[in-house]
Amino acid sequence: MGTEETGGAGHDLRHHGDAEVRDDGAALVDLAVNVRADTPPPWLREEIAGSLSALAAYPDGRAARAAVAARHGLPVERVLLTAGAAEAFVLLARALKVRQPVVVHPQFTEPEAALRDAGHTVERVLLRAEDGFRLGPAAVPEAADLVVIGNPTNPTSVLHPAESIVRLARPGRTLVVDEAFMDAVPGEREALAGRTDVPGLVVLRSLTKTWGLAGLRIGYALAAPDVIAELERAQPLWPVSTPALAAARACVAPRALAEAGHAAYRIAADRAHLVSGLAAFAARGVRVVEPAEGPFVLVEIPDASGVRRRLRDLGYAVRRGDTFPGLGAEWVRIAVRDRGTVNRFLKALSAALDPPAHPRDSLD
Amino acid sequence: MGTEETGGAGHDLRHHGDAEVRDDGAALVDLAVNVRADTPPPWLREEIAGSLSALAAYPDGRAARAAVAARHGLPVERVLLTAGAAEAFVLLARALKVRQPVVVHPQFTEPEAALRDAGHTVERVLLRAEDGFRLGPAAVPEAADLVVIGNPTNPTSVLHPAESIVRLARPGRTLVVDEAFMDAVPGEREALAGRTDVPGLVVLRSLTKTWGLAGLRIGYALAAPDVIAELERAQPLWPVSTPALAAARACVAPRALAEAGHAAYRIAADRAHLVSGLAAFAARGVRVVEPAEGPFVLVEIPDASGVRRRLRDLGYAVRRGDTFPGLGAEWVRIAVRDRGTVNRFLKALSAALDPPAHPRDSLD
Repeated sequence: MGTEETGGAGHDLRHHGDAEVRDDGAALVDLAVNVRADTPPPWLREEIAGSLSALAAYPDGRAARAAVAARHGLPVERVLLTAGAAEAFVLLARALKVRQPVVVHPQFTEPEAALRDAGHTVERVLLRAEDGFRLGPAAVPEAADLVVIGNPTNPTSVLHPAESIVRLARPGRTLVVDEAFMDAVPGEREALAGRTDVPGLVVLRSLTKTWGLAGLRIGYALAAPDVIAELERAQPLWPVSTPALAAARACVAPRALAEAGHAAYRIAADRAHLVSGLAAFAARGVRVVEPAEGPFVLVEIPDASGVRRRLRDLGYAVRRGDTFPGLGAEWVRIAVRDRGTVNRFLKALSAALDPPAHPRDSLD
Repeated sequence: MGTEETGGAGHDLRHHGDAEVRDDGAALVDLAVNVRADTPPPWLREEIAGSLSALAAYPDGRAARAAVAARHGLPVERVLLTAGAAEAFVLLARALKVRQPVVVHPQFTEPEAALRDAGHTVERVLLRAEDGFRLGPAAVPEAADLVVIGNPTNPTSVLHPAESIVRLARPGRTLVVDEAFMDAVPGEREALAGRTDVPGLVVLRSLTKTWGLAGLRIGYALAAPDVIAELERAQPLWPVSTPALAAARACVAPRALAEAGHAAYRIAADRAHLVSGLAAFAARGVRVVEPAEGPFVLVEIPDASGVRRRLRDLGYAVRRGDTFPGLGAEWVRIAVRDRGTVNRFLKALSAALDPPAHPRDSLD
């Protein structure tokens, strides 16, 4: 584990998985983007379509805000709806008085990018592969007044114990926990959403991943009322669209929560299948970061960029790891998919790991 | 005409017409909100509904940006898509280095609110009723490095000559022209969108009003490439949703432009009908600001708040004027509606202007 100040060089913080699937003429099987493949489900599409008849009116977020608050057992003053978690990162970077922000890496790069764009110098805490990318006791500098950490963490798939995150809280420090993937964890074990006893806690949630609503821009922040008020003042008027508000209400309804709960168990089973499939390649240097608890796994592969290229030729996109601070060229992130897709992918991976020694020979 | 610094008192800059129609149990006929009543049209609703099947993917704004650029004959580097004009105001307030911002009032209050929320002290230029709320030759202080003006102006409905706005341009000054209602002006007379010869010009457009997409959050800014790049850096990732992008593409297509052009002429005819109807109340002190060129008119009415209250009792909502800096309690803004609605409204207004001298008597 170590810390560093960011100079802006080294990692393209604005590279995201969507870029790895969209610019290719051929349709690739997408194991790069962390969005469930069978979403949004028909009932949710219908709820959203139903909102289109009300588009002429300005969005009224009150019902959705109340629904989200109720889902977490919180008063509405502790809830802010945002245009995706991405907007929340910008609000945190620009609205709060912050002098020494620290981002715990490897993680989703957008929080750091937003902080830098807002003019901050960002200190990085780098969790290490040797430690299983787990949080050590003395990871974060005492003087940090804003700490950002993901749980479960993208891209490492590490689920930190809630209490080890709580131990990062300090008077005068804002502790931002990105729980964008928490609803993919069975029982939402280790969630901090809904907690009101942790000073400075800000929990971010997204409805993008589990519900396949990346295109709709909807998420929310949970925090103390004074922090929510400060973030809200920095928001544009009507920040969340009417279809996104309809989706938010639908996604926190009991039916949706039950469906997300089932999905979490299915993801866990599919992930176990993927991980055991990858374990078969251990002799060829493939190593999964374990235990993986998110809907994706981080994998070390010798000559990862060559393997990625050959996988693309075989029709499969996985996410490069080297744009995440703390990771090098040997890492890739692989989204959890259904067993059939995983089986076909593993076959392709096997071929991609064993390129013909002399490619030209294969044409003979 | 005069200038003042804002202390924050006096006007609720965050009051908008939508609040005047939504909190009432009874359904009011809405002449308060500046959105065309017959929108979005069915073909546009279908385009938007068609985008819902792609919600699982992150929004890709490139095609919409190119379509908007082509509509104004500009390179894409001069176009930024935003989550409504409201987002553009926040970006301008927070991303640009501004020391002396000036807002020309009365106008839409959100630009000033966004500037103040970003920590700026905002100087107001107040155009006066005696001058027909028209821009005088020496209106804006020379030192202003950001000037915001609306054209046509909400709520005055004044259309400033393009060249009198251009005369406000200076080296080192950002000149923001909110053209949110320009497509309601036949031929878009006096538009600055598409001009590249005005230093510091930023034109804001909205697709909300003409197309009834207030719920979708879509608009755009046109400016020099370096300004666009600066604003873009302050945007959240994926700022505009997939349905909003689909709408943007559809709304700048030739078919939509033709329909907007027709609508502008119809609005002009409906407005003439409204204005001449209001002229019949001149003897009772009703006075319309003329010439009105937007899809709404600003009207001076004695005891306006009493009249508004009585109109509500009769089922009609109009927009109070006194939340706009520069206007007092005697002003209301009335949206242009079709002749039938206007005729019924004028009848209600006639009754509202003549309350029973002794209300209790009317029960006898």
